[in-house]
Amino acid sequence: MRLPDSFYSTVRARLTEALHHRELDGFLASSPADVAFLSGFFYIATERPVYLWMPAEGDPLLVLPHLDVEYAAQQGVTIDTVSYPEFPGVVTAEQTLAAALSGRRTRRVGFGAGLTVGTLAKLDAALPNTELVVTDAVAQLRLRKFPEEIPLHEAAARICDEMLAAGRELITEALRAGRELPREDEIARHVIGYGTDRMYADYDLVVYTTKLAGGLVYAGPNSALPHGLPTRRRVQPGDTLILSLGAAVASRFVESERTFVIGEPTAEQRRYYEADREAQQVGTEAMLVGRTCAEVNRTCLDVLRGHGLGEYIRHRQGHGIGLQNHEPPWVSDGDDTVLADGMLLSSEPGVYVPGHAGYRISDTVLVTDAGPRRLTSYPRDLEANIIEGVR
Amino acid sequence: MRLPDSFYSTVRARLTEALHHRELDGFLASSPADVAFLSGFFYIATERPVYLWMPAEGDPLLVLPHLDVEYAAQQGVTIDTVSYPEFPGVVTAEQTLAAALSGRRTRRVGFGAGLTVGTLAKLDAALPNTELVVTDAVAQLRLRKFPEEIPLHEAAARICDEMLAAGRELITEALRAGRELPREDEIARHVIGYGTDRMYADYDLVVYTTKLAGGLVYAGPNSALPHGLPTRRRVQPGDTLILSLGAAVASRFVESERTFVIGEPTAEQRRYYEADREAQQVGTEAMLVGRTCAEVNRTCLDVLRGHGLGEYIRHRQGHGIGLQNHEPPWVSDGDDTVLADGMLLSSEPGVYVPGHAGYRISDTVLVTDAGPRRLTSYPRDLEANIIEGVR
Repeated sequence: MRLPDSFYSTVRARLTEALHHRELDGFLASSPADVAFLSGFFYIATERPVYLWMPAEGDPLLVLPHLDVEYAAQQGVTIDTVSYPEFPGVVTAEQTLAAALSGRRTRRVGFGAGLTVGTLAKLDAALPNTELVVTDAVAQLRLRKFPEEIPLHEAAARICDEMLAAGRELITEALRAGRELPREDEIARHVIGYGTDRMYADYDLVVYTTKLAGGLVYAGPNSALPHGLPTRRRVQPGDTLILSLGAAVASRFVESERTFVIGEPTAEQRRYYEADREAQQVGTEAMLVGRTCAEVNRTCLDVLRGHGLGEYIRHRQGHGIGLQNHEPPWVSDGDDTVLADGMLLSSEPGVYVPGHAGYRISDTVLVTDAGPRRLTSYPRDLEANIIEGVR
Repeated sequence: MRLPDSFYSTVRARLTEALHHRELDGFLASSPADVAFLSGFFYIATERPVYLWMPAEGDPLLVLPHLDVEYAAQQGVTIDTVSYPEFPGVVTAEQTLAAALSGRRTRRVGFGAGLTVGTLAKLDAALPNTELVVTDAVAQLRLRKFPEEIPLHEAAARICDEMLAAGRELITEALRAGRELPREDEIARHVIGYGTDRMYADYDLVVYTTKLAGGLVYAGPNSALPHGLPTRRRVQPGDTLILSLGAAVASRFVESERTFVIGEPTAEQRRYYEADREAQQVGTEAMLVGRTCAEVNRTCLDVLRGHGLGEYIRHRQGHGIGLQNHEPPWVSDGDDTVLADGMLLSSEPGVYVPGHAGYRISDTVLVTDAGPRRLTSYPRDLEANIIEGVR
């Protein structure tokens, strides 16, 4: 599942350009997503720091805790590596980094805005002759996906779509057999298990990310809380049901979310579903190169407002997706990022009616010069998403 | 699963004292663990900030994204709440916070070292008349667990121990039935499913945390990588197998890890196992009030070195556990924290022999004035952890 060397050399060349432009001698990466993006080393974020030094000129360097050295080798990481014994340790990660960088040009070094205040203080102490400055050099590079990354997102999208089908099938089977219907938490476990299985079956080395396959499942009134956890409530005929699923291949994320109705929908369910479906369609088609995120979001949510559902809006249309499940840009008020070829976004307007249910349809959408392209393709129309035991 | 009000009022009183001592007008919490600790509101950490204002005098205030307001109410959070529409939004979270604090005393405000540089810049801009200073006021309060928290950790410990038993049983059953043995990833899913089920069965409202129940499962050579992921390799007779499991009740974490041998152990397996078992026993008994973390760690790891296994050490003895799976203090070189009544620590020395296998036994240990008390109690001796189909 390692990306080709061409990807890393292209990224390296683009970063070098950005560093020169910002008059930086290098970039110090320390978040799992940035480190994975720049080096192909995937790791579990703990208190043990990982630092990746990406100089404007010269060779990169990876600073790892001793216990991860063999794991990095297993992943095929070829960057020069130094390790520190343990956290916090007598010789710290920051001191190890400083010693390894001694003699290299580190007058002015950039870091990402996600660095913590505590870590910055440690780096400042270990590198007294270095000016550490916040930079968006790597964040900007990650905004538009590289061609080599797209097949990984597409692979994750296929798994997500199959997870939706697996969740639906679990309910259909129970209806057909006349058994009691599964609980929300059972459906969640089933689809997550399905997705994880697929990933292990398809790839030799499954690398760590924040979540290989994940999902929230909520039905009936519980689905009106966009951030609730699945409960032990059994789904039941008449329920509105949201399957909110995600998967990542080589930490390249995708999400795919659908709303289902168990049995014949009521007029109320049809009204909310169709309004959300229309907003999602209009909002997705609006994801055009040259538009701003805020404009696209407004176009999308205006459909819901036009249907008199403004009071049931709880969130923006969507967010960027990449090496993190949520990342910039934000398809939201307040984000004036201009959409460009290669950006990958969720399109997921929702309608949340307290006490009744929630409705959300989400696709992962690639912005291209030829128009928006949905990577996820599970059916979106209501008739296809009515779950019945008899077909 | 909400802690009694007495817990929150005690914490509040202790925090007020700490703030006065540090001449701070208040503390601004923004990490899920700090917010949950101080308010009982549990949430999924995303890019949408949550701020909890805990003043030295006056009423606390919670700043939430609009979409989480109903979720907070469902959790029984009674602190005054203001919400901002969305992230990033036209009116940001930081501006919403600043407006709500206007007129209150916020001359000098503390925040934790885990705040990111980017967030600090936004807060600085929104609160121009406030001096924002890093403080360990809340980190210090979280070092020693409160009496009300212990039963939650104990409940998590029971679930962890049962998860170990469930994993072992899955293998035993297959051996007895003469079926092929399960894969590492199947065992992991089975035990995580078991733990999650138990949690949902035991509690009405399962609140969000980074992981309800989690586990790494690795056998044979794969177990020699402390941070590897489970693979699709089937466990097999002769394998050394590590089940590294964790669970959290109301985000109060515990971990319980055991090493098993499938079938009769070889002399080599016995040697490594017994050495690790002895180090864990000695190290756990050394967790006494008044000792430093570094001393305890040295005592523990010296047992392995004494057995000539120094080259197979990959990590420290352990780490603090609480609202996070890993948190201070660190039972490691470089941490001179003096152990005190109420601290909760993992005791988990490991032996990792490349190409052969890894051995690790972990308990979650409460430091008390009466000596160390293990919350996890799954058997630790080798004879008990030999997995055979016939008993």
